[in-house]
Amino acid sequence: MQFDSLDDIRTFCRNLPAGDERIAAAAALRQQGLTKPPGSLGRLEELAIWLARWQCRELPQLDRVTIAVFAGNHGVAVRGVSAYPPAVTEQMVANFTAGGAAINQIAGLAGAELLTVPIELDRPTRDFTSAPAMDADDFLSAIDVGYRTVPPDCDLLAVGEMGIANTTTAAALCAALLGGGPARWAGRGTGVDDAGLARKRAAIEAALDRHRSILGDPLAVAAAMGGRELAAIAGAILAARRRQIPVLLDGFVATAAVVPLACLERGILDHCRAGHVSAESGHRALLRELGLDPLLDLNMRLGEASGAGVATLLLRAAVACHAGMATFSGAGVSNTDQ
Amino acid sequence: MQFDSLDDIRTFCRNLPAGDERIAAAAALRQQGLTKPPGSLGRLEELAIWLARWQCRELPQLDRVTIAVFAGNHGVAVRGVSAYPPAVTEQMVANFTAGGAAINQIAGLAGAELLTVPIELDRPTRDFTSAPAMDADDFLSAIDVGYRTVPPDCDLLAVGEMGIANTTTAAALCAALLGGGPARWAGRGTGVDDAGLARKRAAIEAALDRHRSILGDPLAVAAAMGGRELAAIAGAILAARRRQIPVLLDGFVATAAVVPLACLERGILDHCRAGHVSAESGHRALLRELGLDPLLDLNMRLGEASGAGVATLLLRAAVACHAGMATFSGAGVSNTDQ
Repeated sequence: MQFDSLDDIRTFCRNLPAGDERIAAAAALRQQGLTKPPGSLGRLEELAIWLARWQCRELPQLDRVTIAVFAGNHGVAVRGVSAYPPAVTEQMVANFTAGGAAINQIAGLAGAELLTVPIELDRPTRDFTSAPAMDADDFLSAIDVGYRTVPPDCDLLAVGEMGIANTTTAAALCAALLGGGPARWAGRGTGVDDAGLARKRAAIEAALDRHRSILGDPLAVAAAMGGRELAAIAGAILAARRRQIPVLLDGFVATAAVVPLACLERGILDHCRAGHVSAESGHRALLRELGLDPLLDLNMRLGEASGAGVATLLLRAAVACHAGMATFSGAGVSNTDQ
Repeated sequence: MQFDSLDDIRTFCRNLPAGDERIAAAAALRQQGLTKPPGSLGRLEELAIWLARWQCRELPQLDRVTIAVFAGNHGVAVRGVSAYPPAVTEQMVANFTAGGAAINQIAGLAGAELLTVPIELDRPTRDFTSAPAMDADDFLSAIDVGYRTVPPDCDLLAVGEMGIANTTTAAALCAALLGGGPARWAGRGTGVDDAGLARKRAAIEAALDRHRSILGDPLAVAAAMGGRELAAIAGAILAARRRQIPVLLDGFVATAAVVPLACLERGILDHCRAGHVSAESGHRALLRELGLDPLLDLNMRLGEASGAGVATLLLRAAVACHAGMATFSGAGVSNTDQ
């Protein structure tokens, strides 16, 4: 196991590399010489420089792009918080394996490998309205699954999830760690009706009450009110940070999964960008809380890394321009100061 | 020539096909059966259905994607409205041909053919602050260039432009046809300073005054206050509409180029989507006026079809999901009503 205790994680989070600022500066200088008005590629320039910083290469590459989709089942599903039955988690994992899901098509288009990681689907977490979802061992084990999933040599990691009822779990984490109550964070997920939404809010309220004694401890909250796939995402984020691999986060659930880390250590998400802002109602507020500016806003709300997967296409555009464009002097184009 | 008079264009605009609503409905039905909560792919679903409607195919294809970049020179450049000298238009055309510009990298990534179409660069339009930029023959000839550029068999057209001083031209067209004065539409373009911006506004004010007798006639305005590359874009949009080819518009200039058409005929842009909203200050307001909701918002302001080119990647994602995903019944995934 990567971590033997929650304290191991806390120590790990205080000792992480910060990317290569000198290489980022060199990449920024390179951008200034390319045949375009300075800054005119907007976020594509910023993304190329960010990739350079974390890959420690003035010319970042995207030869190996990994999309990891973690799946878990949730005890809170018994509260009637989802429009779909829990069996769908496993059915969708089979769909990923067979190549029939949205993320399969997107990964194929993006030239990315897709890693599907189901985590003990036959052992849902406990219903956190009445008990801790996971004990510390379960939680550390799920973190470990995520940590070990990240290929040490990948150039970019995109993380996503599948888990019936997990927007309730995500909203519970946000409510516990960021405040604002269930109404701020609970949305319609895969499409619950008004009664389902009321049940979601009630489940979150009950969880906040049940676990009120630990709300000041982000990792304890992640265990007691989280889910295995969310913990695995946090583990993957830590592995990527240790290896200086840039990361694209997917939607509301994937972003909520890293809130406990963000509460532990300021700047721990510097190697991450938000692939998109989803249509799930709490995501925009959550991104704002974390200081993440999403790359896409396409009204998507599917999860399974679909938004992050589409956003990898933008990174490819950024890298292609950064590496392939001519310079003013090389192309014989007059610059403003000539 | 496609059009012998401005009246020919007016007649043409009143007699255009509207896409295949029955096929759009079939594509929408197909989306409902795919393994995802209904609507959860957001705009990717809408885009697939839109492509199906205009390609008249339930399964739209993007085998031949054409990016057309039209280039022109502008007499109003003598008013000191750009940060770059007019020679840069031709230099950048050479850069496109040599493969060194941003759009070359983006087109390569997007699997698109790039057509670079310089239009009489050695014969700039007249300075429209004191004379009509083009007479009717010049204007019709530029429209014709654009019309003939569109490959009859392409699956998607993205349009962009290059032309030093053409954000001034674009802003003048917007001010003339949509109102609000120069301050609403003149931005910093490639990066003019405050004095340059003041000169842009003054030039637009002078043009509005010089041409006030024709402001009620959109095509007369497009000739007198427009540019050759803007007219060519309008011509390309008309050719695409006639052939039911879907179109992605690029930034502020490319969008301004179609304002005269939008003023002529409601719905004439139904086969168009805005690839992005640029950082040029008037673009967001312009898109709102035209009822276009941009696909990307990446703070880009380069022109040369770069934003539309990146947006073609989103269309590829939409088409890949639409065509490649499994259905609930085919994949054995439980749907909400099961």
